[in-house]
Amino acid sequence: MQIDLNCDLGESFGSYSIGSDEAILPLVSSVNVACGFHAGDPSVMRKTVQMAIRSGTAIGAHPGFPDLQGFGRRQLSVTPSEAYDMVLYQIGALDGFVRSEGGSLHHVKPHGALYNMAAGDSSLAAAIAEAVFKFNPDLILYGLSGSELIAAGKNAGLQTASEVFADRTYQSSGALTPRTRDDALIKEDRQAIEQVKRMITEKKVISTDGKEIPITADTVCIHGDGAHALEFAARIKKELLDDGISIQSM
Amino acid sequence: MQIDLNCDLGESFGSYSIGSDEAILPLVSSVNVACGFHAGDPSVMRKTVQMAIRSGTAIGAHPGFPDLQGFGRRQLSVTPSEAYDMVLYQIGALDGFVRSEGGSLHHVKPHGALYNMAAGDSSLAAAIAEAVFKFNPDLILYGLSGSELIAAGKNAGLQTASEVFADRTYQSSGALTPRTRDDALIKEDRQAIEQVKRMITEKKVISTDGKEIPITADTVCIHGDGAHALEFAARIKKELLDDGISIQSM
Amino acid sequence: MQIDLNCDLGESFGSYSIGSDEAILPLVSSVNVACGFHAGDPSVMRKTVQMAIRSGTAIGAHPGFPDLQGFGRRQLSVTPSEAYDMVLYQIGALDGFVRSEGGSLHHVKPHGALYNMAAGDSSLAAAIAEAVFKFNPDLILYGLSGSELIAAGKNAGLQTASEVFADRTYQSSGALTPRTRDDALIKEDRQAIEQVKRMITEKKVISTDGKEIPITADTVCIHGDGAHALEFAARIKKELLDDGISIQSM
Amino acid sequence: MQIDLNCDLGESFGSYSIGSDEAILPLVSSVNVACGFHAGDPSVMRKTVQMAIRSGTAIGAHPGFPDLQGFGRRQLSVTPSEAYDMVLYQIGALDGFVRSEGGSLHHVKPHGALYNMAAGDSSLAAAIAEAVFKFNPDLILYGLSGSELIAAGKNAGLQTASEVFADRTYQSSGALTPRTRDDALIKEDRQAIEQVKRMITEKKVISTDGKEIPITADTVCIHGDGAHALEFAARIKKELLDDGISIQSM
Repeated sequence: MQIDLNCDLGESFGSYSIGSDEAILPLVSSVNVACGFHAGDPSVMRKTVQMAIRSGTAIGAHPGFPDLQGFGRRQLSVTPSEAYDMVLYQIGALDGFVRSEGGSLHHVKPHGALYNMAAGDSSLAAAIAEAVFKFNPDLILYGLSGSELIAAGKNAGLQTASEVFADRTYQSSGALTPRTRDDALIKEDRQAIEQVKRMITEKKVISTDGKEIPITADTVCIHGDGAHALEFAARIKKELLDDGISIQSM
Repeated sequence: MQIDLNCDLGESFGSYSIGSDEAILPLVSSVNVACGFHAGDPSVMRKTVQMAIRSGTAIGAHPGFPDLQGFGRRQLSVTPSEAYDMVLYQIGALDGFVRSEGGSLHHVKPHGALYNMAAGDSSLAAAIAEAVFKFNPDLILYGLSGSELIAAGKNAGLQTASEVFADRTYQSSGALTPRTRDDALIKEDRQAIEQVKRMITEKKVISTDGKEIPITADTVCIHGDGAHALEFAARIKKELLDDGISIQSM
Repeated sequence: MQIDLNCDLGESFGSYSIGSDEAILPLVSSVNVACGFHAGDPSVMRKTVQMAIRSGTAIGAHPGFPDLQGFGRRQLSVTPSEAYDMVLYQIGALDGFVRSEGGSLHHVKPHGALYNMAAGDSSLAAAIAEAVFKFNPDLILYGLSGSELIAAGKNAGLQTASEVFADRTYQSSGALTPRTRDDALIKEDRQAIEQVKRMITEKKVISTDGKEIPITADTVCIHGDGAHALEFAARIKKELLDDGISIQSM
Repeated sequence: MQIDLNCDLGESFGSYSIGSDEAILPLVSSVNVACGFHAGDPSVMRKTVQMAIRSGTAIGAHPGFPDLQGFGRRQLSVTPSEAYDMVLYQIGALDGFVRSEGGSLHHVKPHGALYNMAAGDSSLAAAIAEAVFKFNPDLILYGLSGSELIAAGKNAGLQTASEVFADRTYQSSGALTPRTRDDALIKEDRQAIEQVKRMITEKKVISTDGKEIPITADTVCIHGDGAHALEFAARIKKELLDDGISIQSM
């Protein structure tokens, strides 16, 4: 039994530093590197790619909206065609660094509001999947488990990775509980780790109203910012390994 | 005998339109496509690449400084390392569109102030040449004839294209006459065309003080903006063909 | 009887030119000057303000989303607090040019997606109105007639200007017909001018389903881009004057 | 005897945080607030202004080049006219927040490469001084002691504040030792504090080659980033007060 642990990386910009990239890298099996639109700049991208290649971690592009101030977390009403273009641009830009450093790009995971919008909007999802496929049909598309993006990826002929969250609760519909609700987050590490283990081994999650919901878990989103995040990442990795679950990219 | 005619393309941005891209395309053998830093945006880039592929013109990346307001014409004191990163980023971004549309990237020509600074600064020139080489050693590096950029390209192991100008005068040093001087520009089409013909057939140019200067001319920069530019492009193409000089990319 | 004719101005950016600013200026009584976020740059703003002051036209700030590529027409999910800050920033920036040129700022009209979102979202509308009021309570807030923005302006203690459109149809609810519908636009100049006259003189508009709807018309939005727009602006101005309706800012 | 201690403030951007703004504020008498071009965004600006007003510190605008990635430290070859426009824009934007919060703008200090270029380029310096004067002739222009910017400010009719540095060495010409030289920085706190005291009380500085050079010191630049910077700021403040030198803005 195996699982992928993925983490966003390379989110610094110019003189601005965010994240504990060097510390989180040994704890995950794949990273999503910001491509200069919502975070990252060309120099940060090169250094991040070099660091990830040295560590042997699978490298993905992490395209987002062109909104540095909002860190790509604000919805922007782009057309599917605009989304296709901005995703393709960002994948290409990152791929240039990966190839020039002797690596090869492994996957694409949309960021923030683009990820969330693509989870529910089939046209947007199809445009993103098409951009990935047109760039390189061997790339894996990461998306929210059960989302329109995963469906669009499969439909386009891409391999997909269904992403789950350790620290978010799920509703009986299978959707994430909206962050605006009080019970959106799992605050106990113990509970979060148990949820992940159940998702991997039983392919199920317990919804906020107590139901067992089927879920596909190919990859778990790991946060890399803050002391507790690092501690949690180390702990979940250890516990999964202790349970005989190997941690590796797809 | 043959020559390449190159033109900047894809310099529109969002709702802003610049250039007569469709009209100039049939008149040149290679185009330099803006990559979103000094001009162009992802959607403009895709459409420009589609147009260029349809026309069979050789496609180059045209990386510039991240200065849309200044159209990449203002000098920015970047380090060679920053230049390497921003050039690699932009080549990758454009290459993604070229490959996804079934084409292949042919060359790289730095834009504006980056081009001018690289003509005289060997460290900057070396960084740009290295970025091109690391991305793809088969790409051709376009630069000012006789410049540090051409020297750096050769030194890096790249094929180079020495660029000359029809409408600019040259000094006895071989350098372009600075635009601040009254005699910097050739205003007569006849004289501009004769200068180009001499550069191609005799590998010489007459300097502003009347000396015959040796010059390498692999490619001629053609402007694509404005009615007169289009007329001049058509005329120089016709005259070169009439003289038995074939127009084709390297 | 009087009416204000307003037009967006100063939407060029760097080397990019949009609009027929000099031609439209004599035909309107107030202008909305882009503030560098969705269009305009500091140099364009200064020149536009100088031109408007020379012509004696009332000058307003035209703040928009920070989205040059989308020309401020794409919705961005900002918080009311972010909207307050970005509107205040842009008003201040424009006001600096107006004051330094010896003029005084007259009004504020949000642009594009910000205008449309504020028409229906009372929290966003309140934040914008508060920014205007905090900057200068004597400024007039322009907004869609009957919108939340007009309500928020009145509620904040601001003078407001209810804007109507010559070339858009209205629904029986008083709302503009969405652009996605076939009957959203009035294509006949004659019909557009009659609609404006009725809105001014009778304070009514005929909805798409034939009903007479009450409407407040303090200012009419005039487009300044394209040959037909200029022609239409000249014609509506002449017809209104012929009918004894004076054209002047509030 | 009195001196002003000034510090750059409000350099965070979106999700990116830089500086210890709350900690440094009680230690200085004036602050220079970034205006959204090289650092800062509208929301950061508002919060920074609110914080500075609460603390009673004099507030200045800190305009820089539109280069967030380079933090305004890279030279950009703008024309004097472009510099005038970008400085006026940024002063206006900040002033809007200051006025709307009930404060009043006190001074303007150009940032980074703009500050350095204006120190030696009289045309650029004149353009900046004119922008400040046209915006409000009562504003104080901060510039490098002995620089073209100070000369331009006086020439324009502005009150000026000659800035000196605690941790930089001076050459016998009165210029700062370029950062590229080994002896550019004073690493000992003791020595830095003695240099400042001598500049204030004797109006002299000892150059790197041991000469006594006359210098005007109206304000001392204090850094606010990092633990040592805060410690040094507290120490220099205490020592100056102990010597009977009062710390207050001009």
